[in-house]
Amino acid sequence: MATPWQCLCLILILIISILCQASSIQLPSKNGARYLSIFWSSNRTLSVSPKYNYETKYFQQKLDHFSFTHLPSFRQRYLINTQYWLGPSRLGPIFLYCGNEGDIEWFAANTGFLWEIAPRFGAMVIFPEHRYYGESMPYGSKEEAYKNATTLSYLTAEQALADYAVLIIELKRNLSAQACPVVLFGGSYGGMLAAWMRLKYPHISIGALASSAPVLQFEDLVPPETFYNIVSNDFRRESMSCFRSIKESWDVINKVGQINGGLAQLTKTFHICRELESADSLTNWLESAYSYLAMANYPYPTDFLMPLPGNPIKEVCRKIDSLPDGASVLQRIFEGVSVYYNYTGKVNCFNLDDDPHGMSGWNWQACTEMIMPMASNRTTSMFPEFYYDPKSNEEQCLKDYHVKPRPTWITTEFGGHAFKSALKAFGSNIIFSNGLLDPWSGGSVLKDVSDTIVALITEKGAHHLDLRAATAEDPDWLLDQRSSEIKMIRDWLDEYYGEKKATFSM
Amino acid sequence: MATPWQCLCLILILIISILCQASSIQLPSKNGARYLSIFWSSNRTLSVSPKYNYETKYFQQKLDHFSFTHLPSFRQRYLINTQYWLGPSRLGPIFLYCGNEGDIEWFAANTGFLWEIAPRFGAMVIFPEHRYYGESMPYGSKEEAYKNATTLSYLTAEQALADYAVLIIELKRNLSAQACPVVLFGGSYGGMLAAWMRLKYPHISIGALASSAPVLQFEDLVPPETFYNIVSNDFRRESMSCFRSIKESWDVINKVGQINGGLAQLTKTFHICRELESADSLTNWLESAYSYLAMANYPYPTDFLMPLPGNPIKEVCRKIDSLPDGASVLQRIFEGVSVYYNYTGKVNCFNLDDDPHGMSGWNWQACTEMIMPMASNRTTSMFPEFYYDPKSNEEQCLKDYHVKPRPTWITTEFGGHAFKSALKAFGSNIIFSNGLLDPWSGGSVLKDVSDTIVALITEKGAHHLDLRAATAEDPDWLLDQRSSEIKMIRDWLDEYYGEKKATFSM
Repeated sequence: MATPWQCLCLILILIISILCQASSIQLPSKNGARYLSIFWSSNRTLSVSPKYNYETKYFQQKLDHFSFTHLPSFRQRYLINTQYWLGPSRLGPIFLYCGNEGDIEWFAANTGFLWEIAPRFGAMVIFPEHRYYGESMPYGSKEEAYKNATTLSYLTAEQALADYAVLIIELKRNLSAQACPVVLFGGSYGGMLAAWMRLKYPHISIGALASSAPVLQFEDLVPPETFYNIVSNDFRRESMSCFRSIKESWDVINKVGQINGGLAQLTKTFHICRELESADSLTNWLESAYSYLAMANYPYPTDFLMPLPGNPIKEVCRKIDSLPDGASVLQRIFEGVSVYYNYTGKVNCFNLDDDPHGMSGWNWQACTEMIMPMASNRTTSMFPEFYYDPKSNEEQCLKDYHVKPRPTWITTEFGGHAFKSALKAFGSNIIFSNGLLDPWSGGSVLKDVSDTIVALITEKGAHHLDLRAATAEDPDWLLDQRSSEIKMIRDWLDEYYGEKKATFSM
Repeated sequence: MATPWQCLCLILILIISILCQASSIQLPSKNGARYLSIFWSSNRTLSVSPKYNYETKYFQQKLDHFSFTHLPSFRQRYLINTQYWLGPSRLGPIFLYCGNEGDIEWFAANTGFLWEIAPRFGAMVIFPEHRYYGESMPYGSKEEAYKNATTLSYLTAEQALADYAVLIIELKRNLSAQACPVVLFGGSYGGMLAAWMRLKYPHISIGALASSAPVLQFEDLVPPETFYNIVSNDFRRESMSCFRSIKESWDVINKVGQINGGLAQLTKTFHICRELESADSLTNWLESAYSYLAMANYPYPTDFLMPLPGNPIKEVCRKIDSLPDGASVLQRIFEGVSVYYNYTGKVNCFNLDDDPHGMSGWNWQACTEMIMPMASNRTTSMFPEFYYDPKSNEEQCLKDYHVKPRPTWITTEFGGHAFKSALKAFGSNIIFSNGLLDPWSGGSVLKDVSDTIVALITEKGAHHLDLRAATAEDPDWLLDQRSSEIKMIRDWLDEYYGEKKATFSM
């Protein structure tokens, strides 16, 4: 029985859902691109005060860098710390994090690595916010910016890259720091931006650390099954029986969902607050959990996407496997997924509609440029089988956002099958760091492209673990990875200073 | 006395001028950027039938590649010839001319070099038209496209580059020619586009011949006096007295203009159809002639900008110098400038308002991105002294086009002072060819940047002479230049084929 409090919650959730759906509707669940977005938890995390010292500043940006349309400019927020900066006369470096799809304070709080190494490089630290996220809202407010396809239309990666280019150049000009080298950092989509920045604006920075950046997750550059195969392998490596339980569960859920009273039974078994309207919504909810678990499969407890134990997949599988022989597969699955959705044990029931992805800029991006085909096959994946269907994706995006995806645009703009060879011939100084547990790693660069464009791989790493702050529990391989990164950044800087010196002495 | 026919002409011209000025007004005369545009004569030249064989096709392009605004797409025209193409199976190359600020048929007619060498390379030839020129009009017609700052706002270099990228990729896909190498060509602004294309879309082409491309004519990358100094030198090298006559003439014109009946006297001396309203308009008219003469200072007669004799500046100076000792400086100047404005001898009087620059997309571009600072100093220039004033340029553009120039955008986007070092580190396979008589050469790349980014210089060449069709009068140095270009293009292709072969045999 629901308590009056639960009833009130349900009503509120219903109202909010309806309001949200009016302006933004969920993507089709099988569009894996949405898993890249880690924006959804930022509001929660942001309630804590910032971990690091910075000033918050604002820069007036053009809304469209590539046309001369009369549009209102907008205030781009950036966080800046010059405490350890060597300054212009000593060519103090500038460490810039390419803000991605979320509030920049959240990325600043979760990119401890940058803050920790900046002092030893005498570096200024800048975290510019990505347009249409956090406080960097065109048209004065999120409500206005997210009003419709017209107001949202300038939310693109190219515009964000141009924002960073313009900001860097203006900032350097104001500080008379034109000769100071810029090193870029970025994780996930931010890592893609950092790498693309090296390709498109090579004169702006001297190198980039692109962590967990799935720059190849477009068109047919990697097989569409890649993402779900890696998630599946993350479970299989922990326990074959756990993998099998999950793989079996989908049929069971479907069958139970079809019998009389089956949805009520599923609702009860999974402690869902409102009775399920279809088995599919439960399936989506579970798929999300597994995917995010794989991304956040860190070796120590974190509060990044959700509060989670260390090695959370191991924990999920332990739960699934540890139930007595007679336990149903559904009971196992529920126990397992509770590690993700309820690690604190404080949740009484789960709101499937309370998916924080709802109204997010990333869903717009995933419906416009960031078309990352995803599929799941019967043999290698533990997920239900499905194919990537560009047609239905397009229909959904037209329905949801009144926008037609451009699935070949990113490959046209940044290089498709020729991306790596273009990088080899025309790029330098990029670290593509990846943890192989991260399902996005399959869409990233996993082999050295050249002497200076290198792949740093950790077998047991997950989604941009290297960018996180150091902890006492950091395993050796993580320490090694970070020290390799520091060494490479040092090399870029040394090379730059060497060239500068040679120029001066000429 | 004017004949009735001349009167009718004058009335028509007056009406056209008024109509044109309603939507587009001349740039301040001292904005040298306008001299880059060679669009103005295209309508005249186009009345002749095309010299080369091609099919005319159309490609549906997005108006804004960098946003998802709901805008009408437009038909981009392109000329194509596959007659000599080796086809996809033999990796037949694709020679693509980056259309610049004019009707593409005119560029096709004036880029004989490309047509002449294509057969020996087994190359397909494509001439895509630049958006907002010729038939490639957004919003259905030139009238609509040029209506106001909003409709014109997508006339930018970045959008044009993206047009070419999208067109090439789609065309190759349709022809199953994905593996066929693309070689870019371009002259003047088209050469800038070709070079920028190598920097921004390195995966799209294997090399570019950028002829007379003033990629450095921005901000303070070269001194603002560069352009007019070169024009002046072109006259000085022919005759010091000619140079002096021109240099002296400005004061005389001004003085005469100020006396009673002086404007009438100038009108008569220079055979101007309508009485001059100011001495300035005469000055501008003369400055234009000298600048274009320097650009078109070809070693044989041409009909490129105007019908001109070979070595036209020599001819101008011969006229100026050959008048008897008693001749006035104004008489000398008139005789000289008639070589430019009236080589055919058919013009009875000159219409200063009949400046074909009037309604041109280039003026919009020169008021938005293509901000090329120009100045003239007292010591090295034969032109009246003037300084570059960004403020007054901005005011003029705001007045004329209701648009604010972005003088630092091109340098932000393509690299400013770091352009050459970025090219060196991140570029390859570009020929910057320049004739030193061309006043634009001073803003181009005149020294090798790397082993594969080379400067090809001819001392006696003018504005992208190398791209013109071979003639019986071609001097040896021009033949040498073209054969160097052919050799380099061959090298690019050989290297590409070598790499492909190595990949296949792996």
